[in-house]
Amino acid sequence: MTSHDTSLSAVGTAAQTVTSGPISPAHHRGYVAGSREDLRVPVRTVHLTNGETVRLYDTSGPYTDPAFEVDVRRGLPALREAWIDERGDTERYDGRIADLTPAGLAVPGAGVRPRRAAGSEAVTQLGYARRGLITPEMEFVAVREGLTPEMVRDEIAAGRAVLPANINHPEIEPMAIGKNFLVKVNANIGNSAVTSSIEEETDKLVWAIRWGADTVMDLSTGKDIHTTREWIVRNSPVPIGTVPLYQALEKVNGKPEELTWELYRDTVIEQCEQGVDYMTVHAGVLLRYVPLTARRKTGIVSRGGSIMAAWCLAHHQENFLYTRFAELTEILRAYDVTYSLGDGLRPGSIADANDAAQFAELETLGELGRISRSMDVQVMIEGPGHVPMHKIKENVDLQQRICDEAPFYTLGPLTTDVAPGYDHITSAIGAAMIGMWGTAMLCYVTPKEHLGLPDRDDVKAGVIAYRIAAHAADLAKGHPGAQAWDDALSDARFEFRWQDQFDLAMDPDTARAYHDATLPAEPAKTAHFCSMCGPKFCSMRISHDIRAEHGDGVAVVAVEAEAEAGMRAKSAEFAAAGNRVYLPLAD
Amino acid sequence: MTSHDTSLSAVGTAAQTVTSGPISPAHHRGYVAGSREDLRVPVRTVHLTNGETVRLYDTSGPYTDPAFEVDVRRGLPALREAWIDERGDTERYDGRIADLTPAGLAVPGAGVRPRRAAGSEAVTQLGYARRGLITPEMEFVAVREGLTPEMVRDEIAAGRAVLPANINHPEIEPMAIGKNFLVKVNANIGNSAVTSSIEEETDKLVWAIRWGADTVMDLSTGKDIHTTREWIVRNSPVPIGTVPLYQALEKVNGKPEELTWELYRDTVIEQCEQGVDYMTVHAGVLLRYVPLTARRKTGIVSRGGSIMAAWCLAHHQENFLYTRFAELTEILRAYDVTYSLGDGLRPGSIADANDAAQFAELETLGELGRISRSMDVQVMIEGPGHVPMHKIKENVDLQQRICDEAPFYTLGPLTTDVAPGYDHITSAIGAAMIGMWGTAMLCYVTPKEHLGLPDRDDVKAGVIAYRIAAHAADLAKGHPGAQAWDDALSDARFEFRWQDQFDLAMDPDTARAYHDATLPAEPAKTAHFCSMCGPKFCSMRISHDIRAEHGDGVAVVAVEAEAEAGMRAKSAEFAAAGNRVYLPLAD
Repeated sequence: MTSHDTSLSAVGTAAQTVTSGPISPAHHRGYVAGSREDLRVPVRTVHLTNGETVRLYDTSGPYTDPAFEVDVRRGLPALREAWIDERGDTERYDGRIADLTPAGLAVPGAGVRPRRAAGSEAVTQLGYARRGLITPEMEFVAVREGLTPEMVRDEIAAGRAVLPANINHPEIEPMAIGKNFLVKVNANIGNSAVTSSIEEETDKLVWAIRWGADTVMDLSTGKDIHTTREWIVRNSPVPIGTVPLYQALEKVNGKPEELTWELYRDTVIEQCEQGVDYMTVHAGVLLRYVPLTARRKTGIVSRGGSIMAAWCLAHHQENFLYTRFAELTEILRAYDVTYSLGDGLRPGSIADANDAAQFAELETLGELGRISRSMDVQVMIEGPGHVPMHKIKENVDLQQRICDEAPFYTLGPLTTDVAPGYDHITSAIGAAMIGMWGTAMLCYVTPKEHLGLPDRDDVKAGVIAYRIAAHAADLAKGHPGAQAWDDALSDARFEFRWQDQFDLAMDPDTARAYHDATLPAEPAKTAHFCSMCGPKFCSMRISHDIRAEHGDGVAVVAVEAEAEAGMRAKSAEFAAAGNRVYLPLAD
Repeated sequence: MTSHDTSLSAVGTAAQTVTSGPISPAHHRGYVAGSREDLRVPVRTVHLTNGETVRLYDTSGPYTDPAFEVDVRRGLPALREAWIDERGDTERYDGRIADLTPAGLAVPGAGVRPRRAAGSEAVTQLGYARRGLITPEMEFVAVREGLTPEMVRDEIAAGRAVLPANINHPEIEPMAIGKNFLVKVNANIGNSAVTSSIEEETDKLVWAIRWGADTVMDLSTGKDIHTTREWIVRNSPVPIGTVPLYQALEKVNGKPEELTWELYRDTVIEQCEQGVDYMTVHAGVLLRYVPLTARRKTGIVSRGGSIMAAWCLAHHQENFLYTRFAELTEILRAYDVTYSLGDGLRPGSIADANDAAQFAELETLGELGRISRSMDVQVMIEGPGHVPMHKIKENVDLQQRICDEAPFYTLGPLTTDVAPGYDHITSAIGAAMIGMWGTAMLCYVTPKEHLGLPDRDDVKAGVIAYRIAAHAADLAKGHPGAQAWDDALSDARFEFRWQDQFDLAMDPDTARAYHDATLPAEPAKTAHFCSMCGPKFCSMRISHDIRAEHGDGVAVVAVEAEAEAGMRAKSAEFAAAGNRVYLPLAD
């Protein structure tokens, strides 16, 4: 791992360093050509020691490309700029004025005038899909996932998938979220009033996608929310999500009752202009649902949910996000921002799972999803939370039925409450299962959940745990191509190609370090045994060839049901060959 | 955590230290009285700051009891000695002579003559259960799990549960393994030729049970196997399992073809005399099944399986563990050693899951299980391995049908091959699911799986991941009492009782450390917000009382469907109360 130091000493107050370069020397970030020259789809190619290559989906952006010069002050190249321009349906205008440099930092996007829809037709991927267009974004996704562009368009048109891509975030490498695509992983980052800085958050973004985050949510709640977000959006090749309510609440000094629709609306527009790709909106927390939480063990645990519940009770009026939903949808439509309809009443404990409050809100989210799609605005639905294993499937089944198969985006769920410090594991269990049953994106949980704000190590631990869950779900769903990765690693394992095992591992650094901790010597990496059992006991060595070379290249033993005499002959033959279970491989 | 130094300087070559004392000051190891004075069932009582107590199942042995003086040179007290004596069906005799001190270490059990059955009746818990006896061991289990002694006896008599308790291991605190009991976790330890020592392994035993291992398998393959095992058995309050084949192979210098029944038999008797409670026996690896593995991606990955396959091929004879199975069963019967019928042909990769080789062997394990039970010898069946999520349930369903509901004991399964370094997570996913569907015991996998031998940290990581899986399964199965733990922790969470959250956590040390990393100040532990969101944004704070005190003590909001006027009145009322979503709690 190399570190690319892009010090800000000339323009700012702090050094800005993000991790760049390939994870492993055998990893090569390549690009697959699409139908046009500016459509280059990233792929991670792993070069194995036996001459084979394995292609893996790559979320890391150009940061892992040694040919790319990282400059976080400048931000990433605007890959989609030409595509958006060509469509000719947007206009530039003077956006909201925000004080971009409260922290004394230069801001990458300063001076760029935002775009919005110019005419009455939707500039959303859903709108294009319904009008029969295959956008470059859709083709990008098709190449990336090994699907046809038509299939991508159909899934988006049907509302079964979303392609979050704000027209003001031209830097992204398009991706799709839907049950007929690879299961995706979201990582949350964001500073809070208590801890962390803009520099740390930008680094966490790059770090999170390095390990496989497909989208990143900036949940900053502290000072400099706007500036932090600007740094993140301009440097992000993955869609960025936010909860605009957090920033709105900052503007009223944390007093929910002082929130107004107008203030919220302006905050949303500010974020639309900045390039946020999807927004969590807690429009399903209705006044009449709040009492349903009163007998709960852990009440309302969603921040957004509790803020809106507070507002509803303070005013004894219906949630303005619900009453103004059509108006809000008009705004998102003008920028192609995707809804992530928040489950503000999700359960926060095993005891509260699948209760009346949760499912009442789900019905409302279904209703709002239909409104959103009727206006050509893309929408996904958020889900729990804390759910014991036997109640997980009901969550997906209900959501799919009530919400017309809109992509489900769940937080975990955690399958027990009793392991704080290990909630990446308690929830990876639930995430893998809910993914298998049709959830499209899994919001990660880090080991610090319930305890503190995640640091770099926690972000990595969370992303890896969730990549495991997502890939396990892809295997269980039989996603075409998913198992090729497992097969390649298992082949390397059986053939004692240690370097290839490390390079094919989800986290090569850790796999290599753990191996070296027991057997640090270089020859051990090619030894025909592993450190667990020692040379004499290695099952793979002992079992290495029950195989006699066969015509079709596959080694097969011709034992079957032989007569007593044949058995003795075989015994002699085996002894003559040196008493080795598997003959030496031909190569 | 305190460390009790029991230096061996006077008698041996190395310092011997094991971790002792309560995990947390709020944890108290207590004992629940049974029907007789010497039947004291351990329980971990957690004292909460609100005066309540929570009782947790405790596997840690007397090591966490401050009143117990640890002396690993002496070993643990022989709790069951009187119970075994009273039954009057065993005799002491001169056992096998083994060189117990090759490492220059004193051995705790030296000089004790082993027991064996004296008459023709089985001295096994299965035998007693079938004869209608409720042994003190069964009552111990009943008290421990909150079940009736009759139910425990019935489950054992039916072969649906085992109570591994060698008459030469009187130190154990009895426990049961069966689908109608709490899901259990096994931790593997053991030195190898490459690394680790006797001292390390004894420490790992105590460390593994401290974090919740219900049984421990000693898989030592290096030098001093006998002595290492003696230390482990004498200091273990949990059943100890082994794979006798490993030691037998050491005796023939690692050459499978030189193994003989006689040599194997003597090794088994040596281990029976020492007190091993259950033994993995790879009797299902039949000669005719070996070719079924030839086209596999990863061949045979079980060490025992590959050793027996090598023997079968070398001699072109049937596996002697199969042909001599009745004779072997007679031996285990004389000591009440439980079979763990090994799945020597388990899949070692996603590609090989649920294949012909695996299920052919399972049929044979079913047949062997019936022979075993017909001789009153307890038996459980081992299972995979590497299995994608959608193929997991078939494993349990087939095993339960083919093996007459004998307890299933699985390794993971790992749900993907691509994350070496994180296989405690890839497999905790599979373990939780297979546990939910009826697997009785989960063999842990550590982060070092496939890479190296686990150290102390790895043992803890593996045990915790598997305790999570087991508890998640208990919740999903609706085990009576399982959810009380989650409820207690969630109550503490909602009421901002941070100390109680730590004390109720599966790993209080880590939960506390993670919290302190973000908010180290002591007042933060009582603060009504947490470090993730900061004071303004905490959903639990904001949402803390939608509750108005109600007659039955449960807080309920009377919002419902009110008229416009009523809404305004409520609004004023809310403002007058300080605009707080939840009123202050009465206490």
